[in-house]
Amino acid sequence: MENEYDIAIVGTGPAGLSAAINAKIRNKSIIVFGNKDLSSKLIKAPKINNYLGFYGITGKQLKESFEAHISNMKVNITEERVNAIYSVGNYFVLMVNNKCYEVKVVIIATGMEYTKPIKGEEEFLGRGVGYCATCDAQLYKDKVVTIIGYTKKDEEEANYVNEFASKLYYIPMYHSDYNLKSEIEIVKDKPIEISGQDKVNKLILKSSEILTDGVFVLKESVSPAQLVPGLITEGEHIKVNRDMSTNIKGCFAAGDCTGTPYQFMKAAGEGLVAALSAVSYIDSNSELY
Amino acid sequence: MENEYDIAIVGTGPAGLSAAINAKIRNKSIIVFGNKDLSSKLIKAPKINNYLGFYGITGKQLKESFEAHISNMKVNITEERVNAIYSVGNYFVLMVNNKCYEVKVVIIATGMEYTKPIKGEEEFLGRGVGYCATCDAQLYKDKVVTIIGYTKKDEEEANYVNEFASKLYYIPMYHSDYNLKSEIEIVKDKPIEISGQDKVNKLILKSSEILTDGVFVLKESVSPAQLVPGLITEGEHIKVNRDMSTNIKGCFAAGDCTGTPYQFMKAAGEGLVAALSAVSYIDSNSELY
Ligand SMILES: Cc1cc2nc3c(=O)[nH]c(=O)nc-3n(C[C@H](O)[C@H](O)[C@H](O)COP(=O)(O)OP(=O)(O)OC[C@H]3O[C@@H](n4cnc5c(N)ncnc54)[C@H](O)[C@@H]3O)c2cc1C
Ligand SMILES: Cc1cc2nc3c(=O)[nH]c(=O)nc-3n(C[C@H](O)[C@H](O)[C@H](O)COP(=O)(O)OP(=O)(O)OC[C@H]3O[C@@H](n4cnc5c(N)ncnc54)[C@H](O)[C@@H]3O)c2cc1C
Repeated sequence: MENEYDIAIVGTGPAGLSAAINAKIRNKSIIVFGNKDLSSKLIKAPKINNYLGFYGITGKQLKESFEAHISNMKVNITEERVNAIYSVGNYFVLMVNNKCYEVKVVIIATGMEYTKPIKGEEEFLGRGVGYCATCDAQLYKDKVVTIIGYTKKDEEEANYVNEFASKLYYIPMYHSDYNLKSEIEIVKDKPIEISGQDKVNKLILKSSEILTDGVFVLKESVSPAQLVPGLITEGEHIKVNRDMSTNIKGCFAAGDCTGTPYQFMKAAGEGLVAALSAVSYIDSNSELY
Repeated sequence: MENEYDIAIVGTGPAGLSAAINAKIRNKSIIVFGNKDLSSKLIKAPKINNYLGFYGITGKQLKESFEAHISNMKVNITEERVNAIYSVGNYFVLMVNNKCYEVKVVIIATGMEYTKPIKGEEEFLGRGVGYCATCDAQLYKDKVVTIIGYTKKDEEEANYVNEFASKLYYIPMYHSDYNLKSEIEIVKDKPIEISGQDKVNKLILKSSEILTDGVFVLKESVSPAQLVPGLITEGEHIKVNRDMSTNIKGCFAAGDCTGTPYQFMKAAGEGLVAALSAVSYIDSNSELY
């Protein structure tokens, strides 16, 4: 099938890319979700001295070396945010906007989420709060929807949902020109609290309020436990063993999301280990597929 | 004191070097034991595609990048083999030929020993078998000594011991011109078994036998459990936690010696983690020193 792969890798920082090249060398079919910029943290690093082999380089330069490496190995990046990953028997199903992917094994390399949840966000999750607007657009036919967007890419999602909603508010958490349909109302204000009774009915901002039926928070990443229901975490981090396996069979993790220290070389090393563990998991369970 | 450091790093493969640069960045005084060639495995790798950031390079090229990195950061390599490491109260004492070093913390990054022990080697260890000929030279005054040397550097050790021994046999396990005192007898034969009663009295080779009071096996590396008495291993590997700590407080490990997969990137990632754990161990135990 078109959307079937051996291994899905979620994240294109050093952990995800190191996993990708190693899985590719082992001849597995892979799909890598993330962004063409690889990792915003990578780009932001002003000077890196502790990635063995490169001394005194900028994050941008390291990014270029990573890009050259993966392009030489024909590793492609699918520029999509994975919204949820379900373990279904011997497979995993990944929900990616309005598409589904089926894979044997998943490697979570999503980095650390630094955006704190908004007050009320977790409380109303599934009751008016969501992380994928395109997935749920149908539910908000002729209703008032508010989208909090963290990156420019979220504007596409807003334009799509606008076709269903009676009214769409877009709250950009970044500075840019906005490429939005003219009916969409842009509100440049800071979200403080999502409130309601049984379901969401209001978004309170720093200097205004919006009456709304739904709020979509389009963060760059969601917490691992939200991403993969059933995944055991320790504090904010995914609990992993030395071979980068998690509590869910066939689900591996690598990089910042597995714990401190938050560093490129740790992430890359763990990505390699996760990939090789994933490969041997697939090979030793071949009777399942 | 001259021979006192915060951190001793044993091994100059990717694990040891990654530990060294990270400890140095954290402003700790370090001593790094190993060789100027860094790692024989590194040099031998014909083509490396899985060290993220470098595609399709030879081991020699990767070695040059590592060399440039450490020389930029003024990390020096002490070309000596560490023979034993003792945990003494809050300190560690390292035995290095006929010198001693005192350090707060040790990072073991010795790679994997691929040379199998000779029959009888472990049985007679300390009863005629040793790993450091210069350390024990005095014990073999006027006795017959046999040295099994695995690298050219061992010839120096043979020349030194020859000043004490009544007779010295040298068994080279490599091909080269030998730079040995003329009295030393070179035996080009394969060691099969070390035998004796209470103590060693004979070395049996493939096509000859040598009557000898002592046999020194100068391998490139000794097993971790022999190197650090009391260290807990799992099979051939040092047992480590996710922060690269071992069962001995203040003793950390990284790289191939901690288990599979045997790969550069895993080794480098673990070296980083070991160094940062070592630094925080020192900082949080500063009242001890
Ligand atoms: C300013 C700055 C300077 C730094 N300097 C250094 C330094 O000098 N040395 C050092 O070692 N470390 C440094 N770091 C830390 C380093 O950036 C991180 O440790 C490293 O990026 C972690 O790699 P990772 O692969 O785990 O995650 P990340 O690099 O964070 O990558 C995660 C990727 O996953 C994507 N993602 C997340 N969720 C999803 C999803 N649901 N679907 C699809 N994609 C998703 C993200 O968009 C991102 O691309 C620095 C960090 C910052 C912010
Ligand atoms: C031919 C070949 C090809 C390979 N190709 C690849 C590849 O393409 N990709 C990949 O990822 N991996 C590859 N590897 C594996 C890789 O070489 C190892 O995983 C890696 O070198 C391990 O690094 P390390 O730092 O743990 O140990 P090592 O690189 O083995 O370094 C250990 C160092 O410690 C020193 N040492 C040991 N004991 C002592 C002591 N008592 N005192 C002082 N110094 C000591 C040793 O002399 C050595 O310098 C290859 C290996 C070989 C042999």
